[in-house]
Amino acid sequence: MNSPDPLSPRLAARMADIEPFHVVVLVTRAKELEAQGRTIVNMVIGEPDAPSAAPIAEAGIRAIQSGHVRYTPGLGTTALRRAIAQWYLSRYAVDLPAERIGVMPGSSGAMLVTMGVLLDPGDEVLMADPSYPCNRHFVRAMEGRARCIPVGADTAYQLTAAIVERHWSTRTRAVMVASPSNPTGTVIPRDELRAIHDVVRARGGVLIVDEIYHGLTYGAHDTTVLEFGDDVFVLNSFSKYFGMTGWRLGWMVAPEAYMPAIEKLAQNLFISASDIAQQAAIAAFSPEAVAVHEQRREEFRAQRDFLLPRLRDLGFDIPVVPEGAFYIYANCSRHTDDSYAFCLDVLEKAGVAIAPGLDFGEHESSRHVRFSYPKPVPVLAEGVARLEKYLRSR
Amino acid sequence: MNSPDPLSPRLAARMADIEPFHVVVLVTRAKELEAQGRTIVNMVIGEPDAPSAAPIAEAGIRAIQSGHVRYTPGLGTTALRRAIAQWYLSRYAVDLPAERIGVMPGSSGAMLVTMGVLLDPGDEVLMADPSYPCNRHFVRAMEGRARCIPVGADTAYQLTAAIVERHWSTRTRAVMVASPSNPTGTVIPRDELRAIHDVVRARGGVLIVDEIYHGLTYGAHDTTVLEFGDDVFVLNSFSKYFGMTGWRLGWMVAPEAYMPAIEKLAQNLFISASDIAQQAAIAAFSPEAVAVHEQRREEFRAQRDFLLPRLRDLGFDIPVVPEGAFYIYANCSRHTDDSYAFCLDVLEKAGVAIAPGLDFGEHESSRHVRFSYPKPVPVLAEGVARLEKYLRSR
Repeated sequence: MNSPDPLSPRLAARMADIEPFHVVVLVTRAKELEAQGRTIVNMVIGEPDAPSAAPIAEAGIRAIQSGHVRYTPGLGTTALRRAIAQWYLSRYAVDLPAERIGVMPGSSGAMLVTMGVLLDPGDEVLMADPSYPCNRHFVRAMEGRARCIPVGADTAYQLTAAIVERHWSTRTRAVMVASPSNPTGTVIPRDELRAIHDVVRARGGVLIVDEIYHGLTYGAHDTTVLEFGDDVFVLNSFSKYFGMTGWRLGWMVAPEAYMPAIEKLAQNLFISASDIAQQAAIAAFSPEAVAVHEQRREEFRAQRDFLLPRLRDLGFDIPVVPEGAFYIYANCSRHTDDSYAFCLDVLEKAGVAIAPGLDFGEHESSRHVRFSYPKPVPVLAEGVARLEKYLRSR
Repeated sequence: MNSPDPLSPRLAARMADIEPFHVVVLVTRAKELEAQGRTIVNMVIGEPDAPSAAPIAEAGIRAIQSGHVRYTPGLGTTALRRAIAQWYLSRYAVDLPAERIGVMPGSSGAMLVTMGVLLDPGDEVLMADPSYPCNRHFVRAMEGRARCIPVGADTAYQLTAAIVERHWSTRTRAVMVASPSNPTGTVIPRDELRAIHDVVRARGGVLIVDEIYHGLTYGAHDTTVLEFGDDVFVLNSFSKYFGMTGWRLGWMVAPEAYMPAIEKLAQNLFISASDIAQQAAIAAFSPEAVAVHEQRREEFRAQRDFLLPRLRDLGFDIPVVPEGAFYIYANCSRHTDDSYAFCLDVLEKAGVAIAPGLDFGEHESSRHVRFSYPKPVPVLAEGVARLEKYLRSR
């Protein structure tokens, strides 16, 4: 019988496959440098600077002042679920019963519940490499297997129906796509999304669509897969378009028959999402708040339009124009074949924080970096000037 | 190839073992009855009526007003982690580095992360039956096996060192206890807790202690297991003693060597807990807030002291005086051998909502109900009067 040695923990096997956020090293170092008096141009975190729109903040304050801050039903308050259903009707002309909507503690919560109700050990989920790293870790946490399929500029870094067909196996349970995508900002064209849905349906699998960056598109149309059928899982968030990152609130839409399982898993895993955030989020759909969101969307577009050509001028290869989210995924192989070391060096010497490809997968990740651009144009201009000086002096 | 039938979902096997909150049926029916104009005496949900203490509410409002509501580090803000460490020092004289504390989205989040870092498929966790039902479901979600050991009044419905010894197997990875316990309100005596810790340590397992109801004890001393060693996992919450249910915030303390794994799993599963809740929770430790918490504790004690003898007078058998939390776990076999049907009937005919034993396990659950008593004494008195009338008229 062994005493546990606190210096050598006995970890579950899954932990060997779950990676930390590598950007945290950069964020921590950036803070140290700032503490030393340096200014850092921060293009690393996927989070706009602006506070939540005033109607949201005011509704949150009213919630606290009311003294009624309680556990809510596991799938969220009826009022918020109805407000989300109304949003689908007005924004997408999709008529959705509120009963198919589950409010979750962030889209992270929605991902966990989705994988929890769908995956048995060994079940496979197809997804793109590069993609948001937590996606594959949610699969692993539930003892499934994420099959990360290398994709490149030729498919705008997205899965296609043909790719899904080609990689389908007897163990495939689900396909997950993100449109717009983090880290690439690319959007799956409407017809391609429909074709992917057709393939997954024909194979008897489940299509999971991350629509977290919906609303944040610039030119491209962000089609919800809910237009194509009731047999899909959709994940969404109040963090990005609605500007509520630190409130931690998201939602999911699922086929009606899965809702009892989703409800009981959400009850058990979370009890409920934050009541304050739920009360505030209703105001996120008000015309006043939507006007703020739309104005910010235009600012993000202007920021992208500023940054994109200048990064290309600096020798970053960006073959696909990102049409959504607030990221530019750039090939940096003209400057380095180790993008992680490059990011550390750029931070140290130029005072610019960007994310290494390593955080988004394995496929050519050492040749890519991600710029997060929701910053005022003068800040982006300072970042570009610093990068230019840095690259010239190497 | 089959098309998925939306009417017959293909659920992960774990979902067959994860039960819904049965009380939700009662809560929903209670709301319907209230909508029909009836008043219901609600002793079903584990949630006090009172709003969060004023310093907490004010700090939450300031957080929103500041406009700085963001993602935080995965283990929480440094300020809050330090405030929690200071609480252990001042309240328990336990000197704990803030680095061993992880702030989580509720103690639910802490449970999920704990099971995620510890359990491989098939690993066993010993726990008491009855206990908080989510505990066994967190184990199941991570493909572990909860071994729920029937316990009775002779051990105050708690595991003992002897019981742990007797049930240890080669598959046992961890033991989980809760003190004070939900649903029984009983406290593990200090020496017994130490003995359990000794057994688990000698066997090379991990002891997980739910200290969520710490602070809410009446006479009994609530010893933190952290006094006995650094090799334990402790779960705690801002929901109960600190009165912040709907804010969804909790924390965990773990051995130092596990913290990197805990951090990366928390990052991936949650990104972070609510920033608003974290900023507000710092104020929960202020002398003004603690004075409110202590006053409420005295109210809970008075409510228990009122309700307990009256339930006994009504024929409920309560062999162990609950010394903590805000629950009375009562044997109702003089009135029924189907406590679930009994709860439904009591709600319908007497307008009193209480929780069936079914929600807390299988061991004699049909002969038990749980009363949640943090209600003003006149409300409890009305509930008692209604129950008395109901029982007399049967």
